[in-house]
Amino acid sequence: MNWQDEIRNAAERVGPHVQRTPVMKTQGFGLDFPVELKLEHMQHTGSFKARGAFNTLLSQPVPPAGLVAASGGNHGAAAAYAAHQLGHKARIYVPEMAGPAKISLIERTGADLQVVPGAYANALEQAQAYEAETGAMQVHAYDAPATVAGQGTCFAEWQAQGLEADTLLIAVGGGGLIAGALAWLQGAKKIVAVEPETACALNAALQARQPVDVEVSGVAANALGAKRIGAICFEFASAQDLASVTVPDSAITKAQTALWRERRILVEPAGATALAALICGAYCPAPGERVAVLICGGNIAPDPLG
Amino acid sequence: MNWQDEIRNAAERVGPHVQRTPVMKTQGFGLDFPVELKLEHMQHTGSFKARGAFNTLLSQPVPPAGLVAASGGNHGAAAAYAAHQLGHKARIYVPEMAGPAKISLIERTGADLQVVPGAYANALEQAQAYEAETGAMQVHAYDAPATVAGQGTCFAEWQAQGLEADTLLIAVGGGGLIAGALAWLQGAKKIVAVEPETACALNAALQARQPVDVEVSGVAANALGAKRIGAICFEFASAQDLASVTVPDSAITKAQTALWRERRILVEPAGATALAALICGAYCPAPGERVAVLICGGNIAPDPLG
Repeated sequence: MNWQDEIRNAAERVGPHVQRTPVMKTQGFGLDFPVELKLEHMQHTGSFKARGAFNTLLSQPVPPAGLVAASGGNHGAAAAYAAHQLGHKARIYVPEMAGPAKISLIERTGADLQVVPGAYANALEQAQAYEAETGAMQVHAYDAPATVAGQGTCFAEWQAQGLEADTLLIAVGGGGLIAGALAWLQGAKKIVAVEPETACALNAALQARQPVDVEVSGVAANALGAKRIGAICFEFASAQDLASVTVPDSAITKAQTALWRERRILVEPAGATALAALICGAYCPAPGERVAVLICGGNIAPDPLG
Repeated sequence: MNWQDEIRNAAERVGPHVQRTPVMKTQGFGLDFPVELKLEHMQHTGSFKARGAFNTLLSQPVPPAGLVAASGGNHGAAAAYAAHQLGHKARIYVPEMAGPAKISLIERTGADLQVVPGAYANALEQAQAYEAETGAMQVHAYDAPATVAGQGTCFAEWQAQGLEADTLLIAVGGGGLIAGALAWLQGAKKIVAVEPETACALNAALQARQPVDVEVSGVAANALGAKRIGAICFEFASAQDLASVTVPDSAITKAQTALWRERRILVEPAGATALAALICGAYCPAPGERVAVLICGGNIAPDPLG
């Protein structure tokens, strides 16, 4: 599989449907070096997930039953939005713990939304039952080639926009986004995976030399709280000797506050997690090393205009 | 006075101190045409005002007493920030009606902040007394050449970033920002002034063929509520036959909600006022006419992370 070709094809497919998100170079956040940002939280439905969702729906036939997804929030919203835009039905199972802001977000896409008591596993179980019963198509949140290729378009776009950095910091949940970066960049730039200390499926897998289950909690858990890293991500991470750091919730909150106070960028905790690694020193660039941070999600709760 | 030269000089002066704000092209907001946006609410202290403040302080000697300003909020924050960055003292008089979000914003700059009971006129009176007593320098919020030239750098920057639009929509309070646009563009693009129906000093002045006092109220009054349009702005507006429209508060709130819901751009009402003119049809572009909207301020109240 030639991943760069896959991502180029994905970019052609999703181009007319996704937002080309802005980039900027800025100085601040208590750092003594500039940082390039890509404001991917301005993507449709507030996270990069729309890229993978559109690519999935556009690269294979969609059955009459449409799609089904189980999601703690951002993926569900993106899948529902993409389905609606492309004229497909969408049934989305959301665990109650996703919270009212993300549940409203999905409701506004016009999807057939099912709020399931409890956590993600319950939602996934019902989604699988619905798939078996109706033949609806599952859209995986992170561990499918079409999803990864879709997320990879974010990095192809960033390079076309003049990305200068030597090193990219990317927050990791299930690993779909960073897998897209690794697949596209193929070692051309250093990539640093950033996870919350209390939701670090990739870091744990790299230590164990295989994907393992982890407990997840903390401020970013409803976006980054995958229990096990995706196999595609793990394979790339192992092969490319990916740098992996973790950050405490206090650093995530500090980064979230700094983005708002200094740049009027209002994001959910997951969207501030990569920057947190610079702010708390979990990743310290070498002198002259140019760094970039992907701002991946903006679906803050409570919704400030909700 | 060659305004374009003034603005080029201002751009050199303020370049190292201001944020180059991102631009994007987007489709949405219920419109059937794309819109270019410049995200100037990401400027230091959350509005374009930092440009004029830096240019003022860098283009003339600053007395030992530093600067003094009276401001409903955004200008005071920008002047205080610029003074702090350049190592000058700053005394800022803020009317109580500015509200806690903008008052905290100014406090965080480290300025000597005086909250004055009542409305703007009281704050201005005290600022003038302080100036007379100490020799501190007044930084005018909108009606001084250095202020206008500073705001003009926003449009020079936007053109350098590839602005394509035929027509720019700009919100107007005292007129410093739009005067900067008129001074830089000199008729090269059509400019549309957008004011709230209940704070329309420019629209009233154009009807009366001279600046006149107006009553101000409504959701954007604490940023756009100048009682009388600046003389510099009025002169440009009259000479260039500026298009002027007004929008109801309901359209401003609708635009503010759309910017957040669709693009995760969270702004104060003033920051959504120019877009409101497209959403409510106060300005209808001709077929094929390309439009751009300046997003001018992000200091929403209450502060979502306050």
